[in-house]
Amino acid sequence: MSTYMEKISAGPLLSQINNPDDLKKLNKSDLQQVCNELRQFIIDSVSVNGGHFGASLGVVELSVALHYVFNTPDDKLVWDVGHQAYGHKILTGRRDVFHTNRRYGGISGFPNIHESEYDAFGVGHSSTSISAALGMAIASKYKGETHRHHVAIIGDGAMTAGLPFEAMNHAGVSNANVLVILNDNNMSIDPNVGALKEYLTDITTSHTYNKLRDDVWKLLGKLPYPEFQREMAGKLGSSLKGMVSKQSNLFEALGLRYFGPIDGHNVTKLVETLKDLNDIPGPKLLHIKTVKGKGYELAEKDQTLWHAPGLFDKVTGKIAKKISSVPEPPKYQDVFGRTIIELAEANPLVMGITPAMPSGCSLKFMMEEMPDRAIDVGIAEQHAVTLSAGLATQGMKVFCNIYSSFMQRAYDMVIHDVAIQDLPVIFCLDRGGVVGDDGATHHGAYDLAYMRCIPNMIVCAPMNEAELRHMMYTAQLPETIHPFSIRYPRGQGVMPEWRVPMERLEIGKGRMIQDGEDIAILTIGHVGNFAVSACRMLSTEDLRPAHYDMRFVKPLDEALLHEIARKFKCIVTVEDGTVKGGFGSAVAEFMAENNYHPQMRMLGIPDKVVEHGKPEELHRDCGYDATGIAQAVRTLATLQLIS
Amino acid sequence: MSTYMEKISAGPLLSQINNPDDLKKLNKSDLQQVCNELRQFIIDSVSVNGGHFGASLGVVELSVALHYVFNTPDDKLVWDVGHQAYGHKILTGRRDVFHTNRRYGGISGFPNIHESEYDAFGVGHSSTSISAALGMAIASKYKGETHRHHVAIIGDGAMTAGLPFEAMNHAGVSNANVLVILNDNNMSIDPNVGALKEYLTDITTSHTYNKLRDDVWKLLGKLPYPEFQREMAGKLGSSLKGMVSKQSNLFEALGLRYFGPIDGHNVTKLVETLKDLNDIPGPKLLHIKTVKGKGYELAEKDQTLWHAPGLFDKVTGKIAKKISSVPEPPKYQDVFGRTIIELAEANPLVMGITPAMPSGCSLKFMMEEMPDRAIDVGIAEQHAVTLSAGLATQGMKVFCNIYSSFMQRAYDMVIHDVAIQDLPVIFCLDRGGVVGDDGATHHGAYDLAYMRCIPNMIVCAPMNEAELRHMMYTAQLPETIHPFSIRYPRGQGVMPEWRVPMERLEIGKGRMIQDGEDIAILTIGHVGNFAVSACRMLSTEDLRPAHYDMRFVKPLDEALLHEIARKFKCIVTVEDGTVKGGFGSAVAEFMAENNYHPQMRMLGIPDKVVEHGKPEELHRDCGYDATGIAQAVRTLATLQLIS
Repeated sequence: MSTYMEKISAGPLLSQINNPDDLKKLNKSDLQQVCNELRQFIIDSVSVNGGHFGASLGVVELSVALHYVFNTPDDKLVWDVGHQAYGHKILTGRRDVFHTNRRYGGISGFPNIHESEYDAFGVGHSSTSISAALGMAIASKYKGETHRHHVAIIGDGAMTAGLPFEAMNHAGVSNANVLVILNDNNMSIDPNVGALKEYLTDITTSHTYNKLRDDVWKLLGKLPYPEFQREMAGKLGSSLKGMVSKQSNLFEALGLRYFGPIDGHNVTKLVETLKDLNDIPGPKLLHIKTVKGKGYELAEKDQTLWHAPGLFDKVTGKIAKKISSVPEPPKYQDVFGRTIIELAEANPLVMGITPAMPSGCSLKFMMEEMPDRAIDVGIAEQHAVTLSAGLATQGMKVFCNIYSSFMQRAYDMVIHDVAIQDLPVIFCLDRGGVVGDDGATHHGAYDLAYMRCIPNMIVCAPMNEAELRHMMYTAQLPETIHPFSIRYPRGQGVMPEWRVPMERLEIGKGRMIQDGEDIAILTIGHVGNFAVSACRMLSTEDLRPAHYDMRFVKPLDEALLHEIARKFKCIVTVEDGTVKGGFGSAVAEFMAENNYHPQMRMLGIPDKVVEHGKPEELHRDCGYDATGIAQAVRTLATLQLIS
Repeated sequence: MSTYMEKISAGPLLSQINNPDDLKKLNKSDLQQVCNELRQFIIDSVSVNGGHFGASLGVVELSVALHYVFNTPDDKLVWDVGHQAYGHKILTGRRDVFHTNRRYGGISGFPNIHESEYDAFGVGHSSTSISAALGMAIASKYKGETHRHHVAIIGDGAMTAGLPFEAMNHAGVSNANVLVILNDNNMSIDPNVGALKEYLTDITTSHTYNKLRDDVWKLLGKLPYPEFQREMAGKLGSSLKGMVSKQSNLFEALGLRYFGPIDGHNVTKLVETLKDLNDIPGPKLLHIKTVKGKGYELAEKDQTLWHAPGLFDKVTGKIAKKISSVPEPPKYQDVFGRTIIELAEANPLVMGITPAMPSGCSLKFMMEEMPDRAIDVGIAEQHAVTLSAGLATQGMKVFCNIYSSFMQRAYDMVIHDVAIQDLPVIFCLDRGGVVGDDGATHHGAYDLAYMRCIPNMIVCAPMNEAELRHMMYTAQLPETIHPFSIRYPRGQGVMPEWRVPMERLEIGKGRMIQDGEDIAILTIGHVGNFAVSACRMLSTEDLRPAHYDMRFVKPLDEALLHEIARKFKCIVTVEDGTVKGGFGSAVAEFMAENNYHPQMRMLGIPDKVVEHGKPEELHRDCGYDATGIAQAVRTLATLQLIS
C-alpha cells in the first residue's frame, strides 16, 4: 500500500561514513564538504520520499560537529522533538535505509531507542530533551562515569514549554555534566511567539551589553580628562561585561553557564566551540543561531510551508499536489478553521486558542481575520488550557484546539482547571486516532479513554464534516454549560460539499445510520464511514447488521443503548482509539451495569504501541477498517448460528 | 462522623468586616490592627479545627492590603494553590462559617468559584494562577472593560513549575492588565529547591546592583580627580541601576515589569505599592518577601511541620497526637519511605525522585540517609517523570513518587517518555483514591483509568502494607522490564507489624482472600479490607460471597477471571477510584470480550466531582465502604433469588 520509495545515492565522502567513527577519521577541513553532501542527501531524499525538511537542513553543520567531537554513542545526544534528527540518523548507520523513513515497516521519522544505540532517547513531542539528558547525566555522575557527555539539542520553540524550565531549574543546581544546545531559529512549525523569543533576539543583537558600553562611554566622555577615558572605559567595560553577561542572562539566572550566540552554520567554529566546552564541567548552555531550511532557498523563505512540504521537485521547488477530477472533501482541520470563523462572526463570545499549531489545526485563518480573538500561545499546552479556563470564567466561549496526543500534556489542567470547576471550555482534539507517518508518539490513541473518566466532561466525535460543524455549533451555544470535547482525525473527510447549515445536536443523543438484524455495529467518530462500507460489503452476503453512530461517548445515549440491547444479540463497537478504557469499554460498562448480555466485539487500537504507517495501513492492522468490521460481523453471525 | 467544630470569635475590627467594602471604610492606620486580629483568628481557628496554617499566616498583610486596594470581586484575585487563602476567605463573608473549613459539608479549604464570587478561580494544585489571571485579563481587554485589575498571587515554590513560565512567556507580550505578586517565602511545603530559589535570594540581597555599584566606586576611586568621583559615581550608578534592574532580571527578560522586593508584612507599604502599581498598565510583577507562619513563632521556625500541623494547643504549641494503647499501623507513606531505603541498600541501582513532596511521601528519610540517591526536584512533576526516564535509560531503577492527582500533570511524560519507550520506571502513585479534607482537586480518582489505557504499563495497587512492600520489591527486580505503577492511599494502613520480608509477586496474578458461593467480590487495593469487613457482616446473614484481591488492574489475571466467571453468577467490583474506565470497567471489558455474562455491580467513585470530607465519609457516600459492599451483595443475592 505504501507508495514508491527511492533509494538515494550519497556524495563521495558521505557514502564512506557508515558510523561516527568514519566521520572522525576525516580532517576538520573536510567537514564542510560532508555538510554539503549531507544537506544534498536530505534534499534528494525528502523531495522524493517525503518527511520533515526544514528542521534537519538547519542542523546539518551541528549534526556533523556533534558526531565529530563527541564519542557517540557513549556520549549521549538527546535531540528535542526529533524533526531535526535526519542528519544524525544518516551519519549513524541509517543512510542506506533512509528512504524507508516514516514508511510502514521502515525507520521512524524521529529518534527511537529501539532503532539505534545512537538514539539516546525517543522523542516526537517537544521539550523533553533537557530533562532526559539531565537524568542520564545524574546517572553517570552517580556511577562515577564522569567522562561521559550528555547533550540536549533543543529549539527555541521547544523552549517555551514549561518542561525545559523545570529541567533547567534542576540542572542549574545539579552540578551534572549536561550541555544544552539552544538551536535558535525563531521557528516552531509556525513562527515562534512569546517573550522568550524577543529576549533571545535581544541577547543575540547584544543589546544589553552594547547599550551598557555606550552609556559608559558617553558618561566618561563628559570627563574633562580624555587621557583617562579610554583606560576607564576599558576597565569598567570589561568588568561590566562579565557582570552583565553573568547576571543579565536568563539562563545564567537559572544556574547554567551561558555561551554564545555563535553561527550554527559554521562547522569549524562549532567543532572548536564544542571541544572547548568539553573541558568545562557542570551545566551549561550554548546558544547557536541557525536558519531553518538552510541551503534550500525556498525553504529558508517560507519556513512553515517547508517544515514538511510533502513530495517536491528539488530543482524547481514545485510541491506535488494531488490532482483530482472530482471535488475533494476538505481536511477536518480546514472545516474547523473555517467553521470557527462563521461561529465567531455570529457569536462575539467565541475565541480560539492554539498552542503553536496555527497551521496544523488551521486556526491561522481566524488569526488572520480576527487577530484579537484567536491566539497562538506557543508550545504551551498547559497554559493554553488554563488560559482558556480563565477566559471561560468571564463568559467567553473558547475553542481550545490541541492535538489529541499533545493534550496529554495538559491533562491536569483539563481536570483541575476546567472540569472540576465545570467551565464550558470547548476542546477540539485534533488528530484523534492514528495519525500516520508521525507514528507512536503522535497517535491520538488515548483521548477517548482519558477524557471519558473526567466528571462533567462531554465527549463526542463527528462521523463527518457536517457533524463536526454541528458539534462545534452546539458546543458554543449559551445553554451548553459544561466542558465539551470534540475529537476528529487528521486529514481528509468524506464530504466534498461540507459547508452545510449548522444544526443544534441534542447532547448525548446518537443516531441510527442503518437498521438491521441480529447484530448492531456501534461506532464513534469517523470510523462510522468504515462501518458504512462494511455494511455494503456484507449486504452481498445477506448479512444485514444495523449501524448506529453514537456521536457521544459521554454522556452515552442510554435510551438508545437500552433499545439496542433489547433488540440485538450481538454488538460490535468500533473506534479509532484504544479499546482499553475507550468507547467500547463504555458500552461494556453500560451493558454490565444494566444486566444486558450481548455478545460483544470491541474493535479499536489494541493495547500496544502502534508504529508509523499510512492511516489505512494501521486501521487494517488494528482490524477496524471496513474489512475488519465486516469480519467481526461475520464471526459473530457464525457464533450465533452455532449457539 | 465529623469531629467537633468550634466557632471562633473575631476581634473588634474583624468582627465588623463582613465583606471587603467594610474593610475599605477603615482608615489606613487601622489596617495593622485588622491584620493582628485576622492572624489571631486564623491561629484560634486552625488550632482547634485543623487546616493549613503557615501559608495563610504569611499573607495576612497581603490579604488585607489586596482587599483594601482592589475593587473585589470585580477586580479578580487569583490565589495560587489556595493554602494561602484563609485570610481572603475570612475577609470575604466567610468568617462565620470558617469553623466548617475542610469539613464534610463545610466550606472548602481552597478558593472555589462555586462557593463565593470573591473566589475568582478554583485551585488546589499549584502554579495555575498566572494563566488563569491572564485569561481573565485578555477577556477584559477584549470586552473593553479596561478598568479591571487581575492579580495572581503565587509563591516562589509554585513558580518552579513549568506552567507559570509558559504563562509569563505569553503575558510578557500580551499587553494585558495582569499583576503577578510573587510571594517569596522560600518554601513549598518543604523548603524550596532549584536555581530559581537561589536567584530570588540573589536579587533580594541586591547582589547584582550592589556589586556593580561597588565596582564602579572602586574604579572611580582610582581616578586622580576626587572632585569628580562622587558626581560620576552618582551618574553612572543610577544609569546602571536602571539598566541592570531592567536587563538583569529574569522576569523583565520575560517581558514583565519587575518591582520589589518589598516587605510583605508591612501592610501600609503594601497598600501604597499596590496603589502605585494600579496606575501602571500591562503585565507586571511585584516581588514581596514574607515569612511562612509569620506571627506564630513555632511555625516560623519549623515551617514544614507547621504547614498543616493538625490540631494544637495555641498557647503551648503542643501538637495533638492520637494516643493509642495498642500498636498502630503505619502510614502507607512511611512504609514507602522506609522500604525504598531497604531496597536501595540491597540494590545499588535504586533511586528515588519526588516533585516537592519529600515530607508528604516520606522520601525525606532516604534523602537524609542517601542524599545522592534521592532527589527533590521541586514542584515539577513533568520533569520528575522525564528525568526518571532518562535515568532509566542508564539502567537505574527509579521510584518516581507522585501523588495520583499531581501525576495528571505529567501524563504525557508517562506515555511519551516512559511507556512508548517501555522503560522500567517505577511510579508510586501516592494518595490514590479519595484523600479527605483537601477535597475535589486532590482526590486520586482517575489514575486507574488513565494508567490502564497506556500500553506496556503495569498497574497495581496493594491491599495492605505487606503487599506494598512486595510490589515495590517486585518492581525493582532486574527481570521487571516494563513501566510499573503502584498506587496506594493517603494515611494509615492496617498492619501494625508491617515490616514483613519482601516477596516477589508474579506480575498479573491476583489472589483469593476468601472462597464463597454465588457471588464474587473483586477488589483492587486497600478497599480489599472493606470487602473483608463486608464478608464478616454478611456471614451473620448466611451470605458467603467469595473475595478476590486482584492486585493488578493490568495485566489482569485472566486465568483467575476465567475461573471466577465460570464459577460465580454475580460479580461485585470495588475500587477507590472512578468507575468510568477504571478497574470495574476493565473487568466488564474482560467479561464482554470473553462472552461471560455475570450480573455485575461496579462500586467506586461515581462520575461526579466528590467534595471534601473524611475518607470514611466519602467512601460511605460513594457506596463502597464495607456497608456499601455488603448492600451490593445483598441486592445481587435477592435478584438471584427472584430470577
